[in-house]
Amino acid sequence: MFAISLGDDGAELRPLEPYHAEEYLAHIDRGREYIGRFIGLADVCTDLDSARAFLRSYAEKAADDSGRLYGIWTADGTLVGGVLFRTFDAAAGTCEVGCWLEEAAVGRGLVTRAIRVIVDWAVEERGIHRVEWIAAAGNAASIKVAQRLGLVRDGVQREKYARGGVRHDVEIWSVLAPEWRELRAGAR
Amino acid sequence: MFAISLGDDGAELRPLEPYHAEEYLAHIDRGREYIGRFIGLADVCTDLDSARAFLRSYAEKAADDSGRLYGIWTADGTLVGGVLFRTFDAAAGTCEVGCWLEEAAVGRGLVTRAIRVIVDWAVEERGIHRVEWIAAAGNAASIKVAQRLGLVRDGVQREKYARGGVRHDVEIWSVLAPEWRELRAGAR
Amino acid sequence: MFAISLGDDGAELRPLEPYHAEEYLAHIDRGREYIGRFIGLADVCTDLDSARAFLRSYAEKAADDSGRLYGIWTADGTLVGGVLFRTFDAAAGTCEVGCWLEEAAVGRGLVTRAIRVIVDWAVEERGIHRVEWIAAAGNAASIKVAQRLGLVRDGVQREKYARGGVRHDVEIWSVLAPEWRELRAGAR
Amino acid sequence: MFAISLGDDGAELRPLEPYHAEEYLAHIDRGREYIGRFIGLADVCTDLDSARAFLRSYAEKAADDSGRLYGIWTADGTLVGGVLFRTFDAAAGTCEVGCWLEEAAVGRGLVTRAIRVIVDWAVEERGIHRVEWIAAAGNAASIKVAQRLGLVRDGVQREKYARGGVRHDVEIWSVLAPEWRELRAGAR
Amino acid sequence: MFAISLGDDGAELRPLEPYHAEEYLAHIDRGREYIGRFIGLADVCTDLDSARAFLRSYAEKAADDSGRLYGIWTADGTLVGGVLFRTFDAAAGTCEVGCWLEEAAVGRGLVTRAIRVIVDWAVEERGIHRVEWIAAAGNAASIKVAQRLGLVRDGVQREKYARGGVRHDVEIWSVLAPEWRELRAGAR
Amino acid sequence: MFAISLGDDGAELRPLEPYHAEEYLAHIDRGREYIGRFIGLADVCTDLDSARAFLRSYAEKAADDSGRLYGIWTADGTLVGGVLFRTFDAAAGTCEVGCWLEEAAVGRGLVTRAIRVIVDWAVEERGIHRVEWIAAAGNAASIKVAQRLGLVRDGVQREKYARGGVRHDVEIWSVLAPEWRELRAGAR
Repeated sequence: MFAISLGDDGAELRPLEPYHAEEYLAHIDRGREYIGRFIGLADVCTDLDSARAFLRSYAEKAADDSGRLYGIWTADGTLVGGVLFRTFDAAAGTCEVGCWLEEAAVGRGLVTRAIRVIVDWAVEERGIHRVEWIAAAGNAASIKVAQRLGLVRDGVQREKYARGGVRHDVEIWSVLAPEWRELRAGAR
Repeated sequence: MFAISLGDDGAELRPLEPYHAEEYLAHIDRGREYIGRFIGLADVCTDLDSARAFLRSYAEKAADDSGRLYGIWTADGTLVGGVLFRTFDAAAGTCEVGCWLEEAAVGRGLVTRAIRVIVDWAVEERGIHRVEWIAAAGNAASIKVAQRLGLVRDGVQREKYARGGVRHDVEIWSVLAPEWRELRAGAR
Repeated sequence: MFAISLGDDGAELRPLEPYHAEEYLAHIDRGREYIGRFIGLADVCTDLDSARAFLRSYAEKAADDSGRLYGIWTADGTLVGGVLFRTFDAAAGTCEVGCWLEEAAVGRGLVTRAIRVIVDWAVEERGIHRVEWIAAAGNAASIKVAQRLGLVRDGVQREKYARGGVRHDVEIWSVLAPEWRELRAGAR
Repeated sequence: MFAISLGDDGAELRPLEPYHAEEYLAHIDRGREYIGRFIGLADVCTDLDSARAFLRSYAEKAADDSGRLYGIWTADGTLVGGVLFRTFDAAAGTCEVGCWLEEAAVGRGLVTRAIRVIVDWAVEERGIHRVEWIAAAGNAASIKVAQRLGLVRDGVQREKYARGGVRHDVEIWSVLAPEWRELRAGAR
Repeated sequence: MFAISLGDDGAELRPLEPYHAEEYLAHIDRGREYIGRFIGLADVCTDLDSARAFLRSYAEKAADDSGRLYGIWTADGTLVGGVLFRTFDAAAGTCEVGCWLEEAAVGRGLVTRAIRVIVDWAVEERGIHRVEWIAAAGNAASIKVAQRLGLVRDGVQREKYARGGVRHDVEIWSVLAPEWRELRAGAR
Repeated sequence: MFAISLGDDGAELRPLEPYHAEEYLAHIDRGREYIGRFIGLADVCTDLDSARAFLRSYAEKAADDSGRLYGIWTADGTLVGGVLFRTFDAAAGTCEVGCWLEEAAVGRGLVTRAIRVIVDWAVEERGIHRVEWIAAAGNAASIKVAQRLGLVRDGVQREKYARGGVRHDVEIWSVLAPEWRELRAGAR
C-alpha cells in the first residue's frame, strides 16, 4: 500500500514484510553470492520458511520499535535490495542503518537514495541523534556509500567479524543529527 | 515516513504505530465520548500505557499479518481518526475493516476515502475475496459508510453486542472482490 | 470420570481431553471423509501428535474459559462424535456451539441431545445471552439440527468460507436466552 | 454441567474451575482458619484475583494432565471442600491425591467418598499404579482418611515441612493398584 | 573458571554448563550402560542437541535457584561424573541431592567428597534444613554413599519408580542441618 | 561455593547470583552515586525486586552463554563491586567486559585483577578472539583500567551515549587473543 518514490527511474521504497517471503527469497537467490561476500543476510534465508522467519523477525522489531526493514523495488516491480535499521533505540537517540543489493541493481544510487529517506525520518521525525553505519573494512562498496552520504569514520574494531573462516576489521561510521541537517541543507 | 494522500484537502493515511502513543491518546481524549457511543475503542485507551498497549497489539497483528491499523491525519498534522483491519486472514481470503473518527473530523468523507485505499490493497495486492463491515444496528454513521461504499447487508446478529448495559443488534455488511472491482470501475 | 447420559440408548457426553488422543484419532480416521465434507475438524488431526495438539488446544481454551470440547460415546464405549463451544465469552454473554459426528452414528439425535445439554449449561449456569450456530449453507444436516433446536437464521455471510477450492456461503443461526428458556419449557 | 453424586445426602463432586472463583473465595474465607492449620491451600487465596489464579493453575495442570481439582458441593449448593490430584503422571503411573474441607462439613465422610471416586478413575481408567497420600504427621484428620481408605504408611520425611515457623514431619502413605482393587472388592 | 579441589588426587568439582555439551555427551557415551542401570540421566542425552538441552535445563534451574548441576573432573581433565541438586527450595529449606559416575571412576570416593562440598554450601551458606537423598532400593552403590555420608533412612516408597518395564521401591534418606553439622564436626 | 582468590588481601571473585539480591542492593545503595557517574548499573537497582530482576537477567544470560556477572568480595566478606561479560558470543569469538566498584574499594587494583581472571577464561577456555572494553570518554578510571590491562583504543563513537541529559563520546578498546597471551607472558 505504502511506497516512497526514490526518483525518476521509478524505483520505490516500501515496507518489506513477512507476506513478501516468496518474492524476497527469489531476490536473495538471485543475489546470494554477491550479497554474501561481506554480510550474513543471505545465509539466514535459504528457503521459504527461513525467508519468512527473517522477515518476521524484523516485523517483530518494528512492533518493538527496535528495528525496521524496507525493500527497494525497481520500476518493473522487481525487489532488488533494501535498507534497514539493524537497531533503533529512540530512547537512547541512536540507530544503525544498513543496506543490501543484488548485483544487477548496483551503480544506480538506489541505496544512497533510500538511506537518505530513512535517515531523514530517523532524525527529523523520531529524534535520533546518532546514526551508525558499520561495514567490514574490505567492503569497499559499503564504505563508499558511507562516504557519499557524508558520514565520519569513528574507528576500526580490529578483527571483530568472522566470515568464511577469516576475521575482518570492522569500520564504524556515523553522522550526528546536526551534521545530517547541514549535509541535507548543503545538498539542496 | 510513509503516507498516502486522501485527496486535495491534504489529509493523509499513515501507519499508526506504538511510537504515536501520546498523539493517539490526545486524539482519543478529544473524541472519547463521540467515538465511544457505539464502539469500545476508546475504552481500552485511558492513559499512555494503555494507549501504547493498544497500538502495540496492532503492531503485533501486523507482524502476524492478522490485522493492521492506520491513522488519518489532516493537513495541519492532527490525527483525527483511522481505519483498520480488525481481522485479516490472507489464507482464508477474508478480512474485516472498520473505522473511527473524532467528531470534529466528521462529514468530510475521510473514512470513506481511507477505506477505499485499504480495501483496494486487500483485494488487489493481497488476494482478499470477502471484506466485512460490522456495525451496531444503531450506528447510523457507520452503516452509511458501508452503504456509500456499495457493500451489501448479509444479516443481523440479534443482540450480539453488549455496550453500556444494553444489548445491540449487529449488522454484517460485505463486499466480494469481483463486486469491489466493479464498484471501483463504475466510480471512475 | 464425569459423564452425562444422553438418553435411554446409553449414549453419554463426556469431556474430551488430550489423554483421549488415540481414541479420538481412531474416531476421526473412521469418519474422516464424512466429517470433512463441510468442516475442517478432521484436517487438523492426521496423526497422534496432531490429534493430541488439537485436544490440547481445547484444554487450554477450557482453562481460559474461552472454548470447550465434549465427546459423545455410545453405549458400547465408542467415541462417535462430539459437540463444542468453538468460542465462549462469558463477559460478552455470547458463545458459538458446533458439532461433528461420524456417519455410522447419524440419525439417532445424538447431537441434538448433546447440544441441548451444553446450551442449558451456557444459558442457565453461565449467563450466556446469545448462542450462535454457524454452518456452511450446503451443510443440510447441520442446518437441520439448528432448525430442530429452534434457532433463528440471522443471515448469510456470502462466500465466507473456502473449502476444497470452492467458496461457500455461511449461515448464522442464533437463539437468545429467553427464547431458549421458552423452547425448553415448551418441550417439556 | 458435570457432577457425580457422593451419596444419598445429595453431595456432589464437580470439576472446580476458574469461573468458580467467587464461590471458591467465599468457601475459603469461611474455612480459612480450619483449613490452614496444616496445609497452605488457603494462604494462596486471599482475594478474587488470587483465587482465580489458583483455580487457573489447576486448569492448566488439567490441560497438561499433570494435576486436577474437584469441588464438593452439598445438597444445598454450597461448595464445602474438595479433592485433588496434586500431581498426576500417567507415564510414570503415579499420582498424589489430597483433600480439604471447611469445618462445618467435617464428619460426614465427604472426603473419603470423593477420594474413592477419583482414585477409582486414576486406577481403572488412567492406569495409575501407585497413589500417594501425604500429610503432616500432626494432621490426625488427614491420616485418619488415609487409614480409612486402606492406605499403607511408607515412611516419615523428618522435618520436611515448615509451617507457622515450625518444621513438621511428613508422612507418606500409599496404595498400589492391585491393593486398591482388593480393597474395593472387599468393600462391596 | 571456577573449581573446587576434591582432594590430593587432583579431582575437581566445577559448574557443568551448556557449553560443556560435547564433553558431557562423550562422558555419558562412555558411561551410558553403567549409569543407566538405575537412573534415567543417560536416557535423555543421546546426541549433542539433547545433551545441550539437558545441561541448559539445569542452567535455567540455577537461574531460578531451583536446581544446580556440577561436574567432577579428574586430574587429567576428564569429566567422569557429577553431583546435583535435583531440587532446591531455599524458602522451604529443603533440597534433594544426587550423583552419577561412569564406571571407570568408581571406588575413589569422588562422589562422597563432592556431595560433602555441595551439602556444606546448602546447609551453611543457603540455610537448607533438610537434605534428601533418593535412590532405587536396588541401587546398592547409591545407598552406600547415603550411609557413608551419615544420612538416615526415612522410608520406602513402594513400587514408586518404573524403569525397564519393572517397578522399583524407592528409598528416601535424609540429613537435617544440625545432624550434618555434628557429622562434619565428628569427621574432623 | 565457588570462589577465586584475587590476591594476598583476601579479596575473592565469585558468581553473583539472584540469591545475593539483598547483599547486592546494600552494596549498590552504598555506591549508588559513585557508580552512577558514568554507567547505568545502579539506576536499574532501586529496591529488592529490581535488584533480583537485574541479577536474574544475568543468570538467564549465563544459561544462554551470552553474558555473565561476577562479584568481588573483600576479605571481610563485603561485596564491593564486580566484573561482567556484558556480551559473550562464543560462536563469533567476541565478548565485551566491564566492571563497577563502590568508591571505598577503589585504588586496590581489584578490578584489574578480576578482569584478568575472566579474560583468561574467555581467551584460554572459551576461545574468544576479541575482548572489548567500552567506556564513556570522561570515565578516566575505566579507561585507566583498559590501559593498565594493555588494551588498544579502536576508536571513539561520537556522542553515542546519553546520561544525565548530556551526550558523551564512547571509547572502544580491545585486545585480541594473541595480544593477550603476549601481555600475560610478559607480565609473568
